[in-house]
Amino acid sequence: MKLLEQKILTDGRILPGEVLKVDNFLNHQIDVALLNKCGEEWYKLYKDENITKIVTIEASGIGIACIAAQYFNVPVVFAKKSKSLNLSADCYTAEVYSYTKAATKTVMISKRYISPEDRILIIDDFLANGSALRGLISIIDQAGATVAGIGIAIEKAYQGGGDELRAQGYRIESLASIASMSDDGIVFRN
Amino acid sequence: MKLLEQKILTDGRILPGEVLKVDNFLNHQIDVALLNKCGEEWYKLYKDENITKIVTIEASGIGIACIAAQYFNVPVVFAKKSKSLNLSADCYTAEVYSYTKAATKTVMISKRYISPEDRILIIDDFLANGSALRGLISIIDQAGATVAGIGIAIEKAYQGGGDELRAQGYRIESLASIASMSDDGIVFRN
Repeated sequence: MKLLEQKILTDGRILPGEVLKVDNFLNHQIDVALLNKCGEEWYKLYKDENITKIVTIEASGIGIACIAAQYFNVPVVFAKKSKSLNLSADCYTAEVYSYTKAATKTVMISKRYISPEDRILIIDDFLANGSALRGLISIIDQAGATVAGIGIAIEKAYQGGGDELRAQGYRIESLASIASMSDDGIVFRN
Repeated sequence: MKLLEQKILTDGRILPGEVLKVDNFLNHQIDVALLNKCGEEWYKLYKDENITKIVTIEASGIGIACIAAQYFNVPVVFAKKSKSLNLSADCYTAEVYSYTKAATKTVMISKRYISPEDRILIIDDFLANGSALRGLISIIDQAGATVAGIGIAIEKAYQGGGDELRAQGYRIESLASIASMSDDGIVFRN
């Protein structure tokens, strides 16, 4: 999506270690109008997939998932990253490693909120090595539901996580896919 | 808001220890259409306040804040609860105690995203003792910005946090305010 690529070029910041900071429009401050355009784009791509639910992971996936869900007219379920005393033990769980936080966390979704008949669209703001995505896919598999599609805002394609999952048969639609990133700038994959 | 009260009565579950579980429509699975009605209601209440930004706290505040922001046509900034390696040290911080997680966390917002001229609407899904809200207010005060209003989905009024803050002059609009809760049911405050 050209609009998102343009936003990354104008407002994103590249920090040492191939860190792309987009916290002024995506994952700290949120440009809700831009999220709306992302939601509209995913709807165009997945509107014939009979999506029954959108699944994402806290925290920064929640906003973009909720905005997208307005187009699909379905509920959002977000995976929780730490065990709350208020969260029932009756959950599907998976282990997810976060490179940015350098820690493994258990993510969980209550068994109440995914059913075998669900056709799920996974939405997330970032895809790099794919650890979060594999965790969500594992949870959806445990529930016997179907991953009908995956919508990502920004994919760091050079980290390979997305292509590994595509090779396994998953349809992943990334609205901006970064082929390479350096001090010289960002090159998008077409 | 009658719609939210009705949803709490039909879909909420009361667990021992005055825990109200609304995780099937508000803070795990999310009924986005209901969030939209909440956003519309807060817009009616705060549309003349010249809101420039909505501030919330991860994780469950993010969805409702983003949906509400569509009415106000302003960005959302969400306070982060743990220090990410990707988050700059240049942040306003506050301590917040979570009763449901029985832990104190530092919450933070980058100094980039709140300015003295901002008129901020704080949005959150729950208000009980008010610890999260006081943390957000502290951050906004540190930035020299104005808390123009506070919008809460569900207030546990009997825990007193909301009324303490009202006594300090803050305008808090809760869409469902619970006067008491027991095995016999829920009584709303008018």
